[in-house]
Amino acid sequence: LLGRWLGAPVEELDTPALIVDLDVFERNLARMADWSRRTGRAVRPHAKAHKSPYVARRQLELGAIGITCSKLGEAEVLVAGGVLDVLISSEVVGPAKIARLIALARQARPIVVVDDAANAEALSRAASAAGVRLPVLVEVNVGQNRCGVEPGEPAGELAARVASLPGLRFAGLQGYEGNLQHVRSLEERRQRCLTSMDLLDRSRRAVNARGLATEIVTTCGTGTHQFVGDLDWVTEVQPGSYIWMDCDYLAVEGTGYEGALSLVTTVVSRQRADAAVVDAGWKSITIESGMPQVKGGLFTYAPAGDEHGKISAPDPAQLPALGARVELIPSHCDTTVNLHDHLFAVRAGRVEAVWPIPARGRVQ
Amino acid sequence: LLGRWLGAPVEELDTPALIVDLDVFERNLARMADWSRRTGRAVRPHAKAHKSPYVARRQLELGAIGITCSKLGEAEVLVAGGVLDVLISSEVVGPAKIARLIALARQARPIVVVDDAANAEALSRAASAAGVRLPVLVEVNVGQNRCGVEPGEPAGELAARVASLPGLRFAGLQGYEGNLQHVRSLEERRQRCLTSMDLLDRSRRAVNARGLATEIVTTCGTGTHQFVGDLDWVTEVQPGSYIWMDCDYLAVEGTGYEGALSLVTTVVSRQRADAAVVDAGWKSITIESGMPQVKGGLFTYAPAGDEHGKISAPDPAQLPALGARVELIPSHCDTTVNLHDHLFAVRAGRVEAVWPIPARGRVQ
Repeated sequence: LLGRWLGAPVEELDTPALIVDLDVFERNLARMADWSRRTGRAVRPHAKAHKSPYVARRQLELGAIGITCSKLGEAEVLVAGGVLDVLISSEVVGPAKIARLIALARQARPIVVVDDAANAEALSRAASAAGVRLPVLVEVNVGQNRCGVEPGEPAGELAARVASLPGLRFAGLQGYEGNLQHVRSLEERRQRCLTSMDLLDRSRRAVNARGLATEIVTTCGTGTHQFVGDLDWVTEVQPGSYIWMDCDYLAVEGTGYEGALSLVTTVVSRQRADAAVVDAGWKSITIESGMPQVKGGLFTYAPAGDEHGKISAPDPAQLPALGARVELIPSHCDTTVNLHDHLFAVRAGRVEAVWPIPARGRVQ
Repeated sequence: LLGRWLGAPVEELDTPALIVDLDVFERNLARMADWSRRTGRAVRPHAKAHKSPYVARRQLELGAIGITCSKLGEAEVLVAGGVLDVLISSEVVGPAKIARLIALARQARPIVVVDDAANAEALSRAASAAGVRLPVLVEVNVGQNRCGVEPGEPAGELAARVASLPGLRFAGLQGYEGNLQHVRSLEERRQRCLTSMDLLDRSRRAVNARGLATEIVTTCGTGTHQFVGDLDWVTEVQPGSYIWMDCDYLAVEGTGYEGALSLVTTVVSRQRADAAVVDAGWKSITIESGMPQVKGGLFTYAPAGDEHGKISAPDPAQLPALGARVELIPSHCDTTVNLHDHLFAVRAGRVEAVWPIPARGRVQ
C-alpha cells in the first residue's frame, strides 16, 4: 500500500507525513564518518534518533563500530534487523528485562551499563546460569544528574565489583553529558564538556588504578562530540540526532550538521481570520523541546489538540489557503519520529524510499 | 509473545506498561449507557481515547449508535475491525484523503464533516464519480475557534450548499465545545456549555428555516454531555475519555467518572539523593496537559528525557528502592494511549487480557 508513493512527487503525499531530505541526510552521515576518520575517535551512533535497523546499517557501512540504543526493546529490533553489536545505554533492571537480555545475548553481542552493585549481581546470576558472559560498562554521572555512579572512586569501586562477578566482563565506562547537548554557545558548551570529560577521566584513572583496563570509554552526543576529537582516552562517541537534526539542535552554535527532517501538513480549515488550521497536532509532532518551526520562516505553529495545529502569520492576509501544504521542522527529532510508523525519504522532490520505523514505541 | 502475560500478577509485568483497571472501566461504560437510556440522548463514543475496534464494540454492545473518530486512518482501522458506522469528526481535505474516503464508503457507512464549500464540492465530485452518496454534517464553531463555520446563517448557507450537491446527503450539524471540557467548576462549565448550545441551536434553526432537516446534531464530550440531557434537539454526544479518564479530567468537578488508566514503571536508578529514576519519559507518557500524577499521592513525577522520569518525595528517605514499581496516572489519556502498542487489562491484580491499539498513530 505504501509502495504506491515510490516515485511520487512530495506534493502528492498524504499528510501529515514525516519526510527526510536524502541529500542532506547523506551529507550528515558522511560528515560524521569523516570526523571519525580524521580524529580516530570511533562512532557508535545512537538509534534513538531513527529507531531503524536500515539506517543503522547505513551508519555501520560508513564505519560506525556498533549501534547504541536506549532500551532493550530497541536492541531486540536492531538485532532482528541484522545489527548484532548493540550498546544499551540505559540500565536493565528487573527479572523480566534481565531474562530478555540473556536471550538476546545468545544471538547477538549486547553491551549493558550498570550503576548499582545489586543490579550487577542480578545480571551476574542470570548470565552465569545461562552460561553467557555479558560485557558491562559502569555508568558515571558526569553532570546530567540522572543515572550513573558518582565520578572517581565510586566508579572504580563498582568497576572492581563488576570485574569480580561471574558471567560479567568489565568492559569500561559510559558517561553522557546529556545536559550539555543543547547549550547554544559553542565556547560555553566546549568548556562545560571538558569539565564533564575531566570527571570521566578521573573515573577512568580510578578504574585503571585497580588494574582494570578501560577497553571502552563511551560518551558525548551530537552537540559535544566535536570537543573530544583529541582526547585519545575517549574511545568512542554516541551521537544520534546528527543524521537529521531538529530546530532545537539547529539553534546550537557550530555543530555543522543540517536539518533533513520535516513534517508535511495540509491546511484543513480556513474559517478563522487569524489562523490556518493544519492536520497535525500533539499526535504528529512533539513540543517538549519547544514549538516546531515552520519552514520558510514567515509563519508560526502552535498545536491545537491531538490532530490539529494553528498556523499564524504577521499579516493574516499571508495565511495559506485551504488545501495548501505547510512544512514543519520538529523541535525534538527522537520523540517526533517515535510518533510515526514510516519515514518518506525524498530526493529531488520525489519519494525515493519509504522507511519503516520498527523500533518505534519500544519503550520496554 | 504477549500471551505469556495472561493471568500473570500485575507485579510481574515488564515496564513501562499501560494498564486498565477492568472493574472501573466497566463501571464507566455502564454509567454512560445508563445516562443515555435515562435521557434519550444517543451516544457516539469518540475512539480517540482508545483507538481500538475491540473497545468500540464493547461500547456498541451497550447501546452506542456508532463510533466517532478524528482521522480517516482511524476510521479505516475501525471498519477493518468490524465497526461500520463511523463519524469522522475532522474535515477530510485533499485528493489523497478523499480517494481513501470514497473507498471506505464502498464498504462501510462513514459520515464526514465539512466547514468549506470548496471542500464539499470536491467531496461531491468524487462521490458522484464513484456512484456513492456520502452523509455530510456541517461543522459549526461553537466556541473552540478551530474548525467550523460561524454559527447561525453561515451554517444555514453551507448546509443548503451541501444539500444541493450530487453525491452528498446533508445529514445535520456538528458543534464541539472542546474548549470547555476541562473547565474545573461544574457551574461555570454548565453556563458556558449552554451558551455554546445556544450557538448550535441557532445554527440548527437557520438550517431548518431553509427546509432542511437536522437528522443528526452531534456535540459534547465527557466534560459537558451531562448538561444536554434535556435538550431534545441534541440527537447525540461524542464523549471519549469517560472510559478511563486521566488526572486532568479527574480534576474536573462533577463528572462522576473514575480513573481506570495508569502506567506502571520501575525504578531503574537510585544514585541521586533527591530522586528515584524510573523507566518512563516522554516516549511513554505525555505532558502537554500537565504532569502525570503518582498514584498514592506521596510522590511527584517529572520527565527526564525520552526514556526516564524523576520521582521526588517531600522526604528523600521515602523514595522507592531500586526495582520498586511506581504507578503514574496520565494527564492526557488520548496522547498517552497513542504512545503504546498494547493495553494490559487487569482485574483483581492479574492480567485478564492484552488489548492491541491498532489505530495508534493513524494520524493520516
